[in-house]
Amino acid sequence: MATQATEQTGASLSEHYAAVRRLSLAIAAPLSDADATIQPMPDASPAKWHLAHTSWFFETFLLRDHLPGYRLHDERWAYLFNSYYDGEGDRHARPRRGMLSRPSLDQVRAYRAAVDAAMAAAIGDLPAELVTLGLNHEQQHQELMLMDLLATFAENPLAPALWDSGPRPTAALPPPARWLEGRDGPVEIGHAGAGFAFDCERPRHPVLLPPHALADRLVTNAEWLEFIADGGYTDPLLWLSDGWAWVREHSIEAPLYWRADEAGWTRFGLDGLQPLGVAEPVCHISYYEADAFARWAGARLPTEAEWEAAAESGDPRSGNQLDSAGAVRPTGAGGWFGDAWTWTASAFLPYPGFRPAGGAVGEYNGKFMCSQMVLRGGSCATPRGHLRASYRNFFYPHQRWMFAGLRLARDP
Amino acid sequence: MATQATEQTGASLSEHYAAVRRLSLAIAAPLSDADATIQPMPDASPAKWHLAHTSWFFETFLLRDHLPGYRLHDERWAYLFNSYYDGEGDRHARPRRGMLSRPSLDQVRAYRAAVDAAMAAAIGDLPAELVTLGLNHEQQHQELMLMDLLATFAENPLAPALWDSGPRPTAALPPPARWLEGRDGPVEIGHAGAGFAFDCERPRHPVLLPPHALADRLVTNAEWLEFIADGGYTDPLLWLSDGWAWVREHSIEAPLYWRADEAGWTRFGLDGLQPLGVAEPVCHISYYEADAFARWAGARLPTEAEWEAAAESGDPRSGNQLDSAGAVRPTGAGGWFGDAWTWTASAFLPYPGFRPAGGAVGEYNGKFMCSQMVLRGGSCATPRGHLRASYRNFFYPHQRWMFAGLRLARDP
Amino acid sequence: MATQATEQTGASLSEHYAAVRRLSLAIAAPLSDADATIQPMPDASPAKWHLAHTSWFFETFLLRDHLPGYRLHDERWAYLFNSYYDGEGDRHARPRRGMLSRPSLDQVRAYRAAVDAAMAAAIGDLPAELVTLGLNHEQQHQELMLMDLLATFAENPLAPALWDSGPRPTAALPPPARWLEGRDGPVEIGHAGAGFAFDCERPRHPVLLPPHALADRLVTNAEWLEFIADGGYTDPLLWLSDGWAWVREHSIEAPLYWRADEAGWTRFGLDGLQPLGVAEPVCHISYYEADAFARWAGARLPTEAEWEAAAESGDPRSGNQLDSAGAVRPTGAGGWFGDAWTWTASAFLPYPGFRPAGGAVGEYNGKFMCSQMVLRGGSCATPRGHLRASYRNFFYPHQRWMFAGLRLARDP
Amino acid sequence: MATQATEQTGASLSEHYAAVRRLSLAIAAPLSDADATIQPMPDASPAKWHLAHTSWFFETFLLRDHLPGYRLHDERWAYLFNSYYDGEGDRHARPRRGMLSRPSLDQVRAYRAAVDAAMAAAIGDLPAELVTLGLNHEQQHQELMLMDLLATFAENPLAPALWDSGPRPTAALPPPARWLEGRDGPVEIGHAGAGFAFDCERPRHPVLLPPHALADRLVTNAEWLEFIADGGYTDPLLWLSDGWAWVREHSIEAPLYWRADEAGWTRFGLDGLQPLGVAEPVCHISYYEADAFARWAGARLPTEAEWEAAAESGDPRSGNQLDSAGAVRPTGAGGWFGDAWTWTASAFLPYPGFRPAGGAVGEYNGKFMCSQMVLRGGSCATPRGHLRASYRNFFYPHQRWMFAGLRLARDP
Repeated sequence: MATQATEQTGASLSEHYAAVRRLSLAIAAPLSDADATIQPMPDASPAKWHLAHTSWFFETFLLRDHLPGYRLHDERWAYLFNSYYDGEGDRHARPRRGMLSRPSLDQVRAYRAAVDAAMAAAIGDLPAELVTLGLNHEQQHQELMLMDLLATFAENPLAPALWDSGPRPTAALPPPARWLEGRDGPVEIGHAGAGFAFDCERPRHPVLLPPHALADRLVTNAEWLEFIADGGYTDPLLWLSDGWAWVREHSIEAPLYWRADEAGWTRFGLDGLQPLGVAEPVCHISYYEADAFARWAGARLPTEAEWEAAAESGDPRSGNQLDSAGAVRPTGAGGWFGDAWTWTASAFLPYPGFRPAGGAVGEYNGKFMCSQMVLRGGSCATPRGHLRASYRNFFYPHQRWMFAGLRLARDP
Repeated sequence: MATQATEQTGASLSEHYAAVRRLSLAIAAPLSDADATIQPMPDASPAKWHLAHTSWFFETFLLRDHLPGYRLHDERWAYLFNSYYDGEGDRHARPRRGMLSRPSLDQVRAYRAAVDAAMAAAIGDLPAELVTLGLNHEQQHQELMLMDLLATFAENPLAPALWDSGPRPTAALPPPARWLEGRDGPVEIGHAGAGFAFDCERPRHPVLLPPHALADRLVTNAEWLEFIADGGYTDPLLWLSDGWAWVREHSIEAPLYWRADEAGWTRFGLDGLQPLGVAEPVCHISYYEADAFARWAGARLPTEAEWEAAAESGDPRSGNQLDSAGAVRPTGAGGWFGDAWTWTASAFLPYPGFRPAGGAVGEYNGKFMCSQMVLRGGSCATPRGHLRASYRNFFYPHQRWMFAGLRLARDP
Repeated sequence: MATQATEQTGASLSEHYAAVRRLSLAIAAPLSDADATIQPMPDASPAKWHLAHTSWFFETFLLRDHLPGYRLHDERWAYLFNSYYDGEGDRHARPRRGMLSRPSLDQVRAYRAAVDAAMAAAIGDLPAELVTLGLNHEQQHQELMLMDLLATFAENPLAPALWDSGPRPTAALPPPARWLEGRDGPVEIGHAGAGFAFDCERPRHPVLLPPHALADRLVTNAEWLEFIADGGYTDPLLWLSDGWAWVREHSIEAPLYWRADEAGWTRFGLDGLQPLGVAEPVCHISYYEADAFARWAGARLPTEAEWEAAAESGDPRSGNQLDSAGAVRPTGAGGWFGDAWTWTASAFLPYPGFRPAGGAVGEYNGKFMCSQMVLRGGSCATPRGHLRASYRNFFYPHQRWMFAGLRLARDP
Repeated sequence: MATQATEQTGASLSEHYAAVRRLSLAIAAPLSDADATIQPMPDASPAKWHLAHTSWFFETFLLRDHLPGYRLHDERWAYLFNSYYDGEGDRHARPRRGMLSRPSLDQVRAYRAAVDAAMAAAIGDLPAELVTLGLNHEQQHQELMLMDLLATFAENPLAPALWDSGPRPTAALPPPARWLEGRDGPVEIGHAGAGFAFDCERPRHPVLLPPHALADRLVTNAEWLEFIADGGYTDPLLWLSDGWAWVREHSIEAPLYWRADEAGWTRFGLDGLQPLGVAEPVCHISYYEADAFARWAGARLPTEAEWEAAAESGDPRSGNQLDSAGAVRPTGAGGWFGDAWTWTASAFLPYPGFRPAGGAVGEYNGKFMCSQMVLRGGSCATPRGHLRASYRNFFYPHQRWMFAGLRLARDP
């Protein structure tokens, strides 16, 4: 409701703008300049880069393009903070983003403040749709920032916690998953109507679903331990060919951030190194692992259409999502949204009749429609209010630094 | 018709077996031992390996498993000629297949003769379905063998021709492509019924097609030259993100096997180095290139369902396909089948309700259902009789040593 | 003289200790936490790491090993700050040193202060020879820190200057180099006597020098520009085979840190981006480049023995060396010491009768005696007081982030 | 004596020419076209390439350059068979030499015959020195051909033997090595006088040798087994830094071509897979391994000067060297020459006053004088008559497909 409101009136758009921008700063609050500078791998970016890039988006596509007379905060920074918009000119090589100690975190914060001041003054005169796009873009980077910070701190042998999570209650193991019969026959998926959605969620269109059932919850760490104990990581017949090659090349034996010591399994998170919570949903797995687990379990992954048809009955603002800065982690509250993204069996491809958004900002989802798989439902690191049942996330099958888990499906 | 016949009676199965096996030898006839030993890249295999591996398939899954008392031709060869069946034990590393000068081509021919003699004697007692699978498997390797030989000879600065193609008549440029309105609404795709099909073509199932149109022919080299002249390979906005990275990393400027010299473009083929035939369908392009061309042309690639719905009206035995050994090349006779595989916009994924074939031979199509795109329609290198409208081929988006081209589609 | 004094009395050893340790902090003074955290390439280390590692050396080999009851500042840090002493246990992977935002620069400074306090209190009771080794070790890391900071800032498209060098006077081009006749016949090289020297400088031993001459100064940037203009980087006949492969693989066209723009050549340094000083000695070249230049010039590189025999007449404390923190750069004052290390034609190999130093600290120079070339004479980044005529530095032939240049030699 | 004779009279030069050229063909006699086509790794070349390249050398530098009116056998072949002479134009990429099934082995033999016929007719009018260089060059390639064939057959899981070595008598373990006191003080090394030598062996010059002793024989496999049993491959303190990185990256646990099975160690050779002969000299080790063994044994490797000063007393035609085609292998007959090349502690660098040979053929030894170590004494695969005490071979420290072993040295 709030989101919809902000899309209709300048006043509440201002408030929404301020709230979203504030959350980014809150996430970065405990960071040192050095913390915010590190790039742990080419797929990830420094926190400072996220803070600056999201501001560059507003500065470029709103202030520069729509506010006559606006002067750039620093002309040289477009080169540094453009992500991949070829239409916006050359840019710093992605794998070298971690080489930038200058500008400092404080300078980036000052950049944000300057952009925010200009936005606040002008927001009533700026195209609301584009502002909303910028805010959704920033929310995506909030989740990316959390993922990348986790990857950064996981590199440190001292295993520092970004946030203290306080005492973690021992959760009871959930009962065995139940199978929910899915809708079959023609159903509509995708986004329609006035509210915001990314271009890749459109157009809404009919698909035919086969008879199927979906598990009523995500797979847990306890179930994953069974998979490991049963030799899941050592039996090639469970794996896709690419997946098995990946397992062997990287000596994969457990989800990312799991560590084995004498006392058993621990997992590293934004709350530091903690005992593995067996009742929690499994997280930080690749598509290969999700697919292998499903095969081992005699099931399969849901398609994105099956998932969406079921999740339309849920509340996208419910579940374990990101409300404020702090040690996010999957807890397994259940429902269709939050905790961990659900790998689907669907490749990220255009919907029938897909049209990229117009202008430079259209150089976006469409260019990634190849070799990636769709994930649905958001995670504990997704800002609450950002999701929809039609929301499509996408990653390469081998990636696992995002908060990704799985939910089983099966044919009748 | 013939295929169907061979699936029903032992007698004609024998004939079909003999014919298919003969064609493999005919393809290899002009090869020296050395020609047949080279592996030009990890994706490809030596011709000798194809000849042996297809025989290993019959020896293992038919003779060994179904003929009591059968003794292996050479016990050590399973290690050499198993392709990827993990259920069949360890095997020689794929990228080292070109290291095997022994066994020689003559020894491999003797292996084939021994297997064929045993098969001929026993074929009436063997499961016909599995024999038919082995023959279809061998036909796939016939096309692979032609692809791999082309890749091999293309490595040789002397540009040797495997076959002399004789004089090539100058073909007239085809008229501009016309748009054929496609079927929309619910249509069925996939294979059903008694005839042979691979597991990935099943089950036949309904899909909903959007309104769309398909070009009445493949894209030609003349059209591709326009794409090049218009800067197609230098404009990042035309390309998928992965595709643009691939273009830059490998300095791609034209389809594979095209060469520029003072006199203009030539292309290398199994008939050696020849002037580029502008009326011919473009061939040896990657998915990235096909997709970029379609975007440049203001169109898109067809989905596999759109293609199949249209191609069901065609005759899978028609068009420019492989009838006998000789210098295959695309000529552009038109129709839905032959000349060059059509890249589709569809990822290679399981159909709803997909079940892998039973037994060791089921470790096959299913394990490749990740990160590959579907191609349809066969090529000049596909043995005539091997295709169906439901036939699904698949390659990674960057690969282009297969005979692959494109046909445009568009939304209304 | 001062060095010798500090080796004899506890009092002046304290002063020397304090002075050396102070210089490290002075070099790091202008650094932000982020500046000090970045590792620009696997060969280099973060400034913070240098500051901590040199302290770890004193803490480990002096305080821990020789001060009963000493408690480690942080037991977990040995893992982080051990460089390569296998005898001291496992350690953090070298290429991941840039992943450590924690401990912070301030925490590392506190570590230094704690170690220094303990050292100050105990220095009279500690083995002076080992303290002196630690100080020489720290001086080496001071030069490395400057090299690594230059590599770090060179990665930043904003080209930040670490120090402002003030106005740079235009230097007059030096006259053509004159040839100084070298000593031939038996000469002694290497270190003997009581003063400090690294194990690889010992034992002093006789060698036979052929008749030869040495240039009276280093090669200048003006002379290097002639080499470039004459096609030096494009003629394979000038290059070692490995060197030519390196030139082609990395598209080498000029010394490291040189940049061409419309206005001509600039070079990046610790004083930022500056016009190339043609009178300055060329710097940041690889052995391959030095060797190719010498061949182009009809000369050769000196052997280390030729160089040492000549340099024994010089004052190792003279020339352009590091006196205090600030923007070091080669200026070309002349003489045998300072400005830029001289690549020699000698491989870094043990002298006859070489014995590594005893104990864990002996796991040092000897293990690098393979595939590296000797450099002599120090540079503008070498702390004054650290050098001797017998001093041997060594790098791989392709490396060039150190302050390395060349001096020509020739046969009669 | 024969060699010297052939350098003086046209008649015996003809005979020498014929004999050397014959041996190359004899080595290749048992090869199939496919055997002769495989390139097992970028460092190695196909046998066919060796046969053609050595002929290209005579055709180019003798027939083309010195025989007016000579027409090239095939103008396109220079591109294929030039090794690395940049002065001779572009050439086929070295790592793709294994892609050439055409020309065939028979065509290459015909090329040899044509070159030989032209050489035989013209030899009296050709510069004898250059012919002799060509023959020495061919002898080098004879040893390389044997090394590369061994590497080729070692890739084949069937472990084919190129030659049957017949029954191998069980050799008695040699007595412990005795230390021979070496010459110290000034000695002369290098080649002087009229006989043939490579440019890198010149000029003969004095060096000062320290007091030292050399073992009277090569290290045996029995001694190497002790090194392994004592954890030689697992103790980093025994290894050079580069060596230890190499051991870990490649999981090195034994010399190349050693294989462990239930029955113990075997080694693969040109005579196939055979039980490890403990009395034989260890062979196929890297410099890193030789150096680590010497350190483990409390000794060191000899310098090339120490070795040469001692070996001048030996007969370079004695020992286990290559007399005719057949299964070469180290046997340990003793002496300074043959069996296995001796890794020395000397880098391959120019002698004082070194001048490369004139003309295109001078683009040779000099360009490799970087990062390689000298080996001395020849091996069982070196054609008898090719060696001298001053002969310098050189390889990179990690290479081990050549027949290389070690002999210990020590300081007094």
